[in-house]
Amino acid sequence: MRLNISIIARLLGILLIILSVCQGLCIIVSALFKSECIIGISSSALTTCLFGILLYWIGNQNKSKIGIKKREGYLVVSLGWIFMSIFGSLPYIFTETVQSWPDAIFEAVSGFTTTGATIFQDIEAVPKGILFWRSMTQWIGGMGIIVMTIAIFPILGIGGMELFLAEAPGPTSDKIHPRINETAKRLWYLYIGLTLILILLLWIEGMDWYDAINHSFTTMATGGFSTKQASIAHFASPLIEYTIIVFMILAGTNYAMTYFLLKRNFKKVLKNDEWKTYLFIIISASLIIAVYLFTNKYYGIESSFRSALFQVVSIITTTGYITADYVAWGPFATVLLFFIMFIGGCAGSTSGGIKVVRHLVMGKNCILEIKRLLHPRAIIPVKLNGTSIKGNIISNVLVFILVYLIVFAVSTAVLSLIGLDIESSLGAAATSLSNVGPGLGTVGPVSDFSNVPSFGKLYLSGLMLLGRLELFTILIIITPEFWRPN
Amino acid sequence: MRLNISIIARLLGILLIILSVCQGLCIIVSALFKSECIIGISSSALTTCLFGILLYWIGNQNKSKIGIKKREGYLVVSLGWIFMSIFGSLPYIFTETVQSWPDAIFEAVSGFTTTGATIFQDIEAVPKGILFWRSMTQWIGGMGIIVMTIAIFPILGIGGMELFLAEAPGPTSDKIHPRINETAKRLWYLYIGLTLILILLLWIEGMDWYDAINHSFTTMATGGFSTKQASIAHFASPLIEYTIIVFMILAGTNYAMTYFLLKRNFKKVLKNDEWKTYLFIIISASLIIAVYLFTNKYYGIESSFRSALFQVVSIITTTGYITADYVAWGPFATVLLFFIMFIGGCAGSTSGGIKVVRHLVMGKNCILEIKRLLHPRAIIPVKLNGTSIKGNIISNVLVFILVYLIVFAVSTAVLSLIGLDIESSLGAAATSLSNVGPGLGTVGPVSDFSNVPSFGKLYLSGLMLLGRLELFTILIIITPEFWRPN
Repeated sequence: MRLNISIIARLLGILLIILSVCQGLCIIVSALFKSECIIGISSSALTTCLFGILLYWIGNQNKSKIGIKKREGYLVVSLGWIFMSIFGSLPYIFTETVQSWPDAIFEAVSGFTTTGATIFQDIEAVPKGILFWRSMTQWIGGMGIIVMTIAIFPILGIGGMELFLAEAPGPTSDKIHPRINETAKRLWYLYIGLTLILILLLWIEGMDWYDAINHSFTTMATGGFSTKQASIAHFASPLIEYTIIVFMILAGTNYAMTYFLLKRNFKKVLKNDEWKTYLFIIISASLIIAVYLFTNKYYGIESSFRSALFQVVSIITTTGYITADYVAWGPFATVLLFFIMFIGGCAGSTSGGIKVVRHLVMGKNCILEIKRLLHPRAIIPVKLNGTSIKGNIISNVLVFILVYLIVFAVSTAVLSLIGLDIESSLGAAATSLSNVGPGLGTVGPVSDFSNVPSFGKLYLSGLMLLGRLELFTILIIITPEFWRPN
Repeated sequence: MRLNISIIARLLGILLIILSVCQGLCIIVSALFKSECIIGISSSALTTCLFGILLYWIGNQNKSKIGIKKREGYLVVSLGWIFMSIFGSLPYIFTETVQSWPDAIFEAVSGFTTTGATIFQDIEAVPKGILFWRSMTQWIGGMGIIVMTIAIFPILGIGGMELFLAEAPGPTSDKIHPRINETAKRLWYLYIGLTLILILLLWIEGMDWYDAINHSFTTMATGGFSTKQASIAHFASPLIEYTIIVFMILAGTNYAMTYFLLKRNFKKVLKNDEWKTYLFIIISASLIIAVYLFTNKYYGIESSFRSALFQVVSIITTTGYITADYVAWGPFATVLLFFIMFIGGCAGSTSGGIKVVRHLVMGKNCILEIKRLLHPRAIIPVKLNGTSIKGNIISNVLVFILVYLIVFAVSTAVLSLIGLDIESSLGAAATSLSNVGPGLGTVGPVSDFSNVPSFGKLYLSGLMLLGRLELFTILIIITPEFWRPN
């Protein structure tokens, strides 16, 4: 069947127009701070808007009656993210805050994928209008992810993502039906509402309006961009840290669960295996690291607990905020936090990584495999939230995890080839693919990505997109099979 | 059903008696070299023999009519390896060449699992009788592995191992039938024959008889213990290196394929997907590293090629011989060789690791998953050697790889907790689990395991056994389910 290019162009056009409006908001912020970068951001907004209108116009020329199907779905999602990143990098270039294209693209991709890795060596020297745009890219990215995971991925059949929404009717039709609108709207209200509450809380707790808004944007998106060089450590406020911990945990929770939580439907939340496992991992990993930090005399009791909890939550939710240089905590804590990068938050949240639900299905299946060896004739299904999972979905999940690890391994080799040392290569590959932000070694928590060669920055940008789009959205497009008409 | 303990005791008894005979051979070698360790080895042989007779006698007391079934199979295999390691460590202790039990157990396990990691800091200072025993443990281990993988594992249903023997009729009966004898004997002749040829070749090429025998033992077992501190680099002979390369490649080949090769049945060999992939990986990885070494001016052309080929073959076959300190080759070569540790040789050989056939099935399945996404209603099977593989075997293979990686990750964390740095933890875990020998960092190719804490040595010994027994043989025994009578 022929690809419906018109509708793809139309949708991308709309996306760019929305993006230009967001850039418009940054003009206002720049004006408030009497920043010199108004002209740069304005021309960027205008460029984005013009291209958007152009694309929409092209798409409107040929109104085909074929609706949007799976193939168009993969393309719209992938191209949408790529277009956002390209046009989202314009403000950095046009205001001359970033000197080279690879750097600007890296920063934009890191924003929209809610990764939070940065090429800025001195964040506080960057104009406030640009920092606001940077935080906003994450917040917009977060919105995009919610729509994608709740409404689009289950239909596209990506890596067992239909699993996490026990409530959703499941992929019954080949067409992307109007459920996007209803579900997405409800969850966006939740996202916006939680952001507003967090802004208020952070302001009460001592941040100024500007910092409160920026950090709320990047917390709710599990992004991790900060307006301060020292990230959250800058504020030196346990209250702010605990507040952000709670909201990171919420942001890493399946939005459907948060919805039930707010509706006080606790029964449904307690029945959710993924959420329980997510909390269990957070608590146990934090306790292990806290005990390790305390017994090794890094900090006092409360401080050990808080630092461990903050860093575990920041990394498992793939936010990437920093309150302590965890690499200085010694090999054990570093290794543990490194592995946590691969876990990620709950599916249906803005967090990256492999996601807890996939680990849960994989873990259960591995344990059951031993039972299957003992009883080779019995059919032993994996159960999630009380119901059996189909074999093809389990296989889908296992393949996803394995492809994830293969991409990680190949990327580590590529990065080591262009000159990063072993730990930095491992760290950069893992943190980019899982959309966390800080890595290990020369790209560790108190460092940045400015010294990575240009090719490396573009490669890592690709890796961030690949991880964000749950691998297969992009992998499917680069197969010849996808382009062969049948 | 009740466990048939008698037959387990009887089989273990026979195993120990055979082991004592092998120790007896070392008495002769010690005598030839007028070594002071004759008394130690003799008392060790005597102890092993007495325990063997005792176990056999106990087993004979109660001749149950129940034959050996799967559950007894798992136990005999696991306990067999554990008993061999315990009694195989006696020569080290009784001759006082090794001072502590953890060290002696580590060295014995490293031998029988054909790993090749050592706790000796100065190998050439060790008495020749003991070094001969050390090489012999690997050669015996190699024999054990051939029986296990060709005859026992396919019946026990371990990790898709029924796959590799396209010729075998497959697990049709629950009983371990007499095929063990016929197949094993034929392959043992091959193993012994190749060892003899290699001894002759190495002697012609300049080694003395003692070194030729030792190195042939540890080459054919893909073990890697050497009688020289500098390993194969000691001989500084390209001819010896190329000879060993060829025999390592053979040793890492499925023994059924070697059999066909010798019978000049090339058609069957060329149809074997695993062997072709194995050679492809060796050639491409060697070329990549050779080009890297040459362009970065480490060596000249021939030397770059030979060093790269030797190290790639040594690691993919999990032999672990050294001709160069590959860690000094920089991050890229190190990372690549580190990942090759996870590949391993062909199933049905003496090599360790995940094995090429599993990677092949996994890789094919991952690529097909993309096709499955595009055609969700089609059933697309994975094909190996021209025939489709059943879904449950694919699932088995995927689970195996994932459990392998989970064990690796947990072990890295454990090792980092007891004081190893990150690279050493990663290296020690990978090299032990894959039965390679040398790792990274403080347990790298020009170093040894003497400085790992005692707990770490015992942990790594467990890891070597776990890897050698294809994970599930041991994992199944530690499940409560296994011990529950039904």
